[in-house]
Amino acid sequence: MIIGIVGLGLIGGSLGLDLCRLNHRVWGVSRSAQTCAEAVQMSAIHYGSTDFHAIPDLSHTDIIVLCTPIDRIIPCLRELAGLVSTKTIITDVASVKASIVPSAMQIYARFIGSHPMAGKESQGIRSAELGLFQGRTCVVCPGESQATDTVKQLWQSVGMTICECTPTDHDRAVAWISHLPVMISAALIHTCQNEPNLELRKLAQTLASSGFRDTSRVGGGNPHLGLCMAQCNREQLLHALTIYQTHLAQIKEWIELENWQALLSLLAQTALDRQLFL
Amino acid sequence: MIIGIVGLGLIGGSLGLDLCRLNHRVWGVSRSAQTCAEAVQMSAIHYGSTDFHAIPDLSHTDIIVLCTPIDRIIPCLRELAGLVSTKTIITDVASVKASIVPSAMQIYARFIGSHPMAGKESQGIRSAELGLFQGRTCVVCPGESQATDTVKQLWQSVGMTICECTPTDHDRAVAWISHLPVMISAALIHTCQNEPNLELRKLAQTLASSGFRDTSRVGGGNPHLGLCMAQCNREQLLHALTIYQTHLAQIKEWIELENWQALLSLLAQTALDRQLFL
Repeated sequence: MIIGIVGLGLIGGSLGLDLCRLNHRVWGVSRSAQTCAEAVQMSAIHYGSTDFHAIPDLSHTDIIVLCTPIDRIIPCLRELAGLVSTKTIITDVASVKASIVPSAMQIYARFIGSHPMAGKESQGIRSAELGLFQGRTCVVCPGESQATDTVKQLWQSVGMTICECTPTDHDRAVAWISHLPVMISAALIHTCQNEPNLELRKLAQTLASSGFRDTSRVGGGNPHLGLCMAQCNREQLLHALTIYQTHLAQIKEWIELENWQALLSLLAQTALDRQLFL
Repeated sequence: MIIGIVGLGLIGGSLGLDLCRLNHRVWGVSRSAQTCAEAVQMSAIHYGSTDFHAIPDLSHTDIIVLCTPIDRIIPCLRELAGLVSTKTIITDVASVKASIVPSAMQIYARFIGSHPMAGKESQGIRSAELGLFQGRTCVVCPGESQATDTVKQLWQSVGMTICECTPTDHDRAVAWISHLPVMISAALIHTCQNEPNLELRKLAQTLASSGFRDTSRVGGGNPHLGLCMAQCNREQLLHALTIYQTHLAQIKEWIELENWQALLSLLAQTALDRQLFL
């Protein structure tokens, strides 16, 4: 197949590495000519450009995967809709779906929303790695039947398990397990860094260990991605934050009242419940 | 040196592996004869017993390290104080210090409080590993001068960097970077698991990925350790939780008001600040 990747960061670059290895013909588009050159050199794409008009394969591409920042997906799709043949399938990798998929399907009938649940701390084409998607889950929001099947096969071919759901259910679920963690983790870093006693703050920095490192990881990630989560999934995230505040207040109250039995029961339950999510 | 380890879990067992490798004579005491046998078999101790009276080296031991659960430290110390020679130095590894060190020094003058900041997800003697402490920080609360030096040298010999501070400062610092993360992480698991819509909860479980895994790790750990943190460092933890609630409410308010500039600034700042703690 001829496959296009728009946006050559960690996800776009890693997908390209897998697809080139699978002997597809892969082109890439990035805002940076330097990134295109790096992607070619590491065999993440066969050729690339900063401009769709410079892609000779564009009109007969089978699938285009939009791996841009969230706010660039709809503008890119509008541009592509006038350039590709009607048999081209277009998908995306955005971590929100309800604010994208319905509009995208209006603009382009063969658009199918995807969200490959894969990532790591580092960003950019240089962090791209072969096999990043292996064994992970990819959400696909079903649309036109044949296009849906092709998109599912694409993600399966790089080792992913498909989970089909509606854009709204996707956003409600990721508010709990992905967007809420970013906000509570950011609040942790902000809280620790705002200890007014400078010596104590330095001591806390010295003593911070694996527990702090793990709990703070997603709150210290790409700020633009965190912002996009809040902007594009605002209502679900606010709901999750409200419920979270209630549960945290309950824990605090138990500690205040020295209700150790209740706290121990909760901690024993969370130790068990966590396994259900892994 | 002759070194005794009381409590043969992850920390006691790992310390034993390092100390045996360094050619010290190492004995162990555990509540379980089975654990003693396993510790001998894996070379974490040379010999062990469930009873101090069965340790022939006891009266001429140089250092005893108490690696028991927090609530066993003072009772063990009282028992040992009547059995060892006055030249024996005793230290502990508890993750709280203010509720232990002053009382312990009253019971036994050559007691020095330690807290090696090392650990991992799994617990027990079977999780013990050589080199667990390498490159990590160990808090030592200074006491009698020669005993303090000996305890510092012990932790340095297994690869740790020493950080000296008072028991109170230790507890205030770990409330921020260790005990607060446990509670916010437990609240996350509890919140996600309490989604009332069963299908949505299952979808969230399916989609949970590395972000959830990391943010939930310490909240899904040993419930008795979490309880001990809350019981033994209650006041500092409550203070940390109160400040945390204020910061989280601020983030939520910005999302409600769509004050995206403020949220982006905070997330950019937390991305930078996190580096100070690693």
